[in-house]
Amino acid sequence: MDKDTRTTKLRLYPEHRALAGEEGIYGDLEFPPPDSHKLPYVLMNMVSSVDGRPSVGGRAAGIGSRTDREAMRALRSRVDAVMVGAGTLRAEKLNLGLDDPGDEQPLAVVVAGAGGLPIRERLVVGRQRVIVAAPEGSRRIAEEGHEAGEVSVRVIETPGSGGGRADLRWLLGVLKSEYGVDRLLVEGGPTLNRSLIDEGLVHELFLTIAPKLLLGPEASILSAGQNNEPCGSGPRDLTLIAAHSAADEIFLRYRFQQPGRRP
Amino acid sequence: MDKDTRTTKLRLYPEHRALAGEEGIYGDLEFPPPDSHKLPYVLMNMVSSVDGRPSVGGRAAGIGSRTDREAMRALRSRVDAVMVGAGTLRAEKLNLGLDDPGDEQPLAVVVAGAGGLPIRERLVVGRQRVIVAAPEGSRRIAEEGHEAGEVSVRVIETPGSGGGRADLRWLLGVLKSEYGVDRLLVEGGPTLNRSLIDEGLVHELFLTIAPKLLLGPEASILSAGQNNEPCGSGPRDLTLIAAHSAADEIFLRYRFQQPGRRP
Repeated sequence: MDKDTRTTKLRLYPEHRALAGEEGIYGDLEFPPPDSHKLPYVLMNMVSSVDGRPSVGGRAAGIGSRTDREAMRALRSRVDAVMVGAGTLRAEKLNLGLDDPGDEQPLAVVVAGAGGLPIRERLVVGRQRVIVAAPEGSRRIAEEGHEAGEVSVRVIETPGSGGGRADLRWLLGVLKSEYGVDRLLVEGGPTLNRSLIDEGLVHELFLTIAPKLLLGPEASILSAGQNNEPCGSGPRDLTLIAAHSAADEIFLRYRFQQPGRRP
Repeated sequence: MDKDTRTTKLRLYPEHRALAGEEGIYGDLEFPPPDSHKLPYVLMNMVSSVDGRPSVGGRAAGIGSRTDREAMRALRSRVDAVMVGAGTLRAEKLNLGLDDPGDEQPLAVVVAGAGGLPIRERLVVGRQRVIVAAPEGSRRIAEEGHEAGEVSVRVIETPGSGGGRADLRWLLGVLKSEYGVDRLLVEGGPTLNRSLIDEGLVHELFLTIAPKLLLGPEASILSAGQNNEPCGSGPRDLTLIAAHSAADEIFLRYRFQQPGRRP
């Protein structure tokens, strides 16, 4: 008998269980214990339109609802560091922390490429510590980091992995060993997300599907970058762990079946 | 008080209600009565990877599971015609009908562009009637249609809407008035799907999300075509009507909030 014909089909919506008051989406996540990993346990959070597009003009802020932002902050409250790529920082003003400034804030990590970073203009940090990971010899970024005024910015010079990009595996090792980052949340953009997945460094994927068709020129939420280089990895299988809905949005949580597999 | 903060958050999975025995996904769909529309009520069915890609090398068959194919056939059993674009027909061998040849089969409609169509090689039809909609003056396609042997092929010559593409609104009107097509199911590919949405002709979208990252070079499931022309419409809002899951797959049903809106 074919395995698939025995598959249980579940109706998820509109039948469902309403979450109790303050529980919220992603309010009760469980993760593996931290000491079981030599590298940080990496969560990736993305918002997508129904047609698989990440944003309008590079800005993701307008796609998700307030509920999506609540879910994002619930994820942030469970990690030691939040990481974004330089393009995301350039595209929009960002706050990588928690809403309550009294809460212990996750470390903010910005992965820089060759260009400068508008840390002071774009990053709303409060008392959050900021790390800029920049390729070796990127004096300009380092200096700009030091210029960021009251913002505490630490520059990590990363060895390159070709193409002027940071060696992400090395960077994650440093974040774990020197900064105590057991769990890391990556919030994009598409190029950084894709690089981490290609390197086999991501354990879980949180995907919010906004009830929209964007129909724009943007590529997939996991595009291979502007130069559209040949992709470094083949298809990857995921396991669905959870699904939630709120006001037409769908929140999916997936686990990579072979997180450590390298292409 | 912000509207969104009152939004009910629902846990869909793993808590859920298992569907009874033979009910299956999309086994109990309800649609508006047919006489309320001058054009067919159009359902669109797509399968996507988690990263919003439609297929590998143009072939969608390998992405969905057997459960997805069951859901697809449940949709087909509720419509008068099933439509695909020529590219989809060229990419893989297709059966646009129902599994049981004794059941009344939906009309098969292939929307052709300028090139020929390998109807006989690609389309498994049984007793299914086939319509090829080809731009005016496409003698070659018409002749190839007549060559299709035992397959009953009717060619509809469509007025062009620019760029050698069929006028889809006109075609849908003919399908309704001359062939009695009250409900039409569109099964891709991305270019045909996108054209119908841009024309404001689609009422519902059924999206299966396969638990995979494809990470390939393909564009979004609703790409604007190979020549990547400027898109004809802006973002569209959808309403989530239903969600199902089966073995890591998610089945989403959306309704267009303004189906008749033209860009």
